[in-house]
Amino acid sequence: MYPEKFENLIEEFSKLPGVGGKTAERYAFTLLGWNDDDINELAQVVKDIKKLKTCEMCGNLSEQNICEICQDESRNTNQICVVKDIKDLYSIENTGAFSGVYHVLGGLIDTRKGILPEDLKIEDLLKRIKPETEEVILALDPTIQGETTGLYLEKLLQDQVHVSRLAYGISVGSHLDYTDKKRLERAFEGRK
Amino acid sequence: MYPEKFENLIEEFSKLPGVGGKTAERYAFTLLGWNDDDINELAQVVKDIKKLKTCEMCGNLSEQNICEICQDESRNTNQICVVKDIKDLYSIENTGAFSGVYHVLGGLIDTRKGILPEDLKIEDLLKRIKPETEEVILALDPTIQGETTGLYLEKLLQDQVHVSRLAYGISVGSHLDYTDKKRLERAFEGRK
Repeated sequence: MYPEKFENLIEEFSKLPGVGGKTAERYAFTLLGWNDDDINELAQVVKDIKKLKTCEMCGNLSEQNICEICQDESRNTNQICVVKDIKDLYSIENTGAFSGVYHVLGGLIDTRKGILPEDLKIEDLLKRIKPETEEVILALDPTIQGETTGLYLEKLLQDQVHVSRLAYGISVGSHLDYTDKKRLERAFEGRK
Repeated sequence: MYPEKFENLIEEFSKLPGVGGKTAERYAFTLLGWNDDDINELAQVVKDIKKLKTCEMCGNLSEQNICEICQDESRNTNQICVVKDIKDLYSIENTGAFSGVYHVLGGLIDTRKGILPEDLKIEDLLKRIKPETEEVILALDPTIQGETTGLYLEKLLQDQVHVSRLAYGISVGSHLDYTDKKRLERAFEGRK
């Protein structure tokens, strides 16, 4: 057993996804080699994450109540891209191919896991759809859960607004955030 | 680009060994799901590592100036086990097979990397050898660097004290901290 303070650090690192004992130990030893400033910075940056909020409008990660994307007046608020989570939002945002706004569902319908439409931010999405809304783009994973959620939303929204989906480019069964930028950009352009 | 505070966290995680952008992102998203207490605890535990010292006697990790092992009166201070680093010290300590004390060299002689005997804590080791010292056990990696360091120390110490080495059990070219407990314990018993 290492000294308590060191064991504690190993234990904390072990809580990260995919980090086993040996890796946690390696991380802890790495920190041991850092100077005080580096350590303080890491501790501060970890603490700072508590200041992050969820955008009241779209569900994006934000330092203010309303995120930078929703605040950006150059963006087309009549084009709403629906995504599973924040990760997917940024995967699309990083392509630079989309200049509308987003709506984060907070998951996908998954009956096996007991995730139902009411568990997702669908009510909030409906409220955002105005007569001037041009298009809702469903940018969901090409998985069973993504398809289910997409079909559900399509039925729900089709009478109110034009609904499109990401089209070619994404391999079926894959995850959006592992799709490369170019491919995602093309899927975006080719939405139907 | 994510909000700044989130990007900062990803950047910090990327400084850990073997952690690329995607993994750092995954760690950062994990923290996003933690509650305030969990976040505070991680930040505190990171900060606490600054309180860890190097034992003035043996070079072990310690919360005091002298480590728990060196302070433990039940241990045989006349048996000194020489190790490369703190990791190896604990690999041996965790076998429970050794009840003497340790000496951490802080590396191995490696002429290719320019690590010479004077870069290691060899002077300190010499000072610790008293007429009553029974044995110095060289528990070094069975690699070229470990062998070189072992031979060097053997020559240096053989007129003053009985020097032994870990014997069978460890595969040549491997590293001590990846050797399983039982094997290391046997190697310890069979030292020569």
